[in-house]
Amino acid sequence: MKTTHPLDKTLALVHSDIRAGHFTGTMGQDYWNMVGPFGGTTAAIMLQSVLKHPDLLGDPVALTVNYAAAIGPGAFEVQAIPVRTNRSTQHWTIAMSQADADGHLQVTTTGTVVTAVRRETWSANDLPMPDVPSPEAVARLSIGPRGVAWLQRYEMRPVSGTIPTQWDGSGDHSETLMWLRDDPSRALDFASLAALSDTFYPRVWLRRATPVPIGTVSITTYFHTDASLLHEIGTGYLLGRATGQQFRNGYFDQAAQLWSESGTLLATSNQIVYFKE
Amino acid sequence: MKTTHPLDKTLALVHSDIRAGHFTGTMGQDYWNMVGPFGGTTAAIMLQSVLKHPDLLGDPVALTVNYAAAIGPGAFEVQAIPVRTNRSTQHWTIAMSQADADGHLQVTTTGTVVTAVRRETWSANDLPMPDVPSPEAVARLSIGPRGVAWLQRYEMRPVSGTIPTQWDGSGDHSETLMWLRDDPSRALDFASLAALSDTFYPRVWLRRATPVPIGTVSITTYFHTDASLLHEIGTGYLLGRATGQQFRNGYFDQAAQLWSESGTLLATSNQIVYFKE
Repeated sequence: MKTTHPLDKTLALVHSDIRAGHFTGTMGQDYWNMVGPFGGTTAAIMLQSVLKHPDLLGDPVALTVNYAAAIGPGAFEVQAIPVRTNRSTQHWTIAMSQADADGHLQVTTTGTVVTAVRRETWSANDLPMPDVPSPEAVARLSIGPRGVAWLQRYEMRPVSGTIPTQWDGSGDHSETLMWLRDDPSRALDFASLAALSDTFYPRVWLRRATPVPIGTVSITTYFHTDASLLHEIGTGYLLGRATGQQFRNGYFDQAAQLWSESGTLLATSNQIVYFKE
Repeated sequence: MKTTHPLDKTLALVHSDIRAGHFTGTMGQDYWNMVGPFGGTTAAIMLQSVLKHPDLLGDPVALTVNYAAAIGPGAFEVQAIPVRTNRSTQHWTIAMSQADADGHLQVTTTGTVVTAVRRETWSANDLPMPDVPSPEAVARLSIGPRGVAWLQRYEMRPVSGTIPTQWDGSGDHSETLMWLRDDPSRALDFASLAALSDTFYPRVWLRRATPVPIGTVSITTYFHTDASLLHEIGTGYLLGRATGQQFRNGYFDQAAQLWSESGTLLATSNQIVYFKE
């Protein structure tokens, strides 16, 4: 019997009849984090509402998702609007909403997407993949039975900069390199790539070896791939790199890159994260 | 007689009576690029609509601007909406519109902003300022009388990676370091910092030493400063660094950083740019 992958369950938006681009969905527990879904899952759902829109032109080039409020389990709505369609590009705004305790719909998440029809051109990579051991040569991160759900949904093989095991304030850098892919394995697509871009644990934890409360407020991911290249990669590993940049007065930003195992830079992503203290 | 700075003229939004956060403005020629205003100017206007909103909470943390269509000279409208206001953060959506040839308002630009009340916390910089000569030791980029208007509005002193003088396809890297500030000089604020984040000429020109047609489609800037730090910097120089990351099939992304002369990282910015061929 073929079972549906947890990410596909999560991305199963239903086109409502209210208006074009209006979808309903159900937030399940498969990618649950501590107080809501893993932010990468939310980003993937936001993008999926564009990918499922009947008027879609081209493939995603840029995705920005702003986390305005916590999302609870259960029903949610997403509205994707193609604000402007040009000859080869399309500009989208997206809003996710959920009913509050009084049953009133409240916006939890806003976002924008740019899609484009891409043509073959001169290409070059100025951010080559770091030289690292193969995924098979690196041990998988052990999460343990009490780990949060979403961490079980990714096979992470840290090459360097793994999550601290001693929370003793000893940190001195903010770079992580890790191999990663979905678990269960799943052929890469734009939605899963959007989610994978957010799998790096907060740089402030590594930098300080101190588990302060955090929350991503905004993430922007640029896609440097088309569907055929994603298809070639299939269920292969990606190499991810994330570094902190500036930590200051309650916020820090982290830059991330994802390469295919053969060294193609598929996505570059940046996020800004709240931290306490 | 005190004259108004060109950027302040450009940012002079008028609060209309139509609805809260609805502004009108006039796109002048002071920051004109080849076929429209300099993208940094548009980003600054988008941010300004939030900064002038009566319900604003805190200072800008993140700004994303999507360039959906060319902007012409003359009247435009901007609508800033505080979609969600939390205890210490606020999430905004913004749209700029302009009348088309038939007088119908069309969205030219979309954006999102996150603002926040920031508190002093542990801070650290993991992206230190490169070691470079002082601004006074570096010659100013000469634009010449036929240069586009916006380039005259910035004092640029390239340390390395200046714009090619020989367009002979000889490029081999995509990094620029330059000192820069407004011309005429103007005390730094969030709006000018947003504009300064977009002053790096397209990385593809440097990388290829080939002047292909380009256009930024989306820019995201994170602010790592508060108003008092901006005030301290005043009219001082900033050191800017920009690098290309991935160039592929009509789009490339560039990452940029802006430090104060004393080495504080004030803003980190990323953009994705269309290029032809």
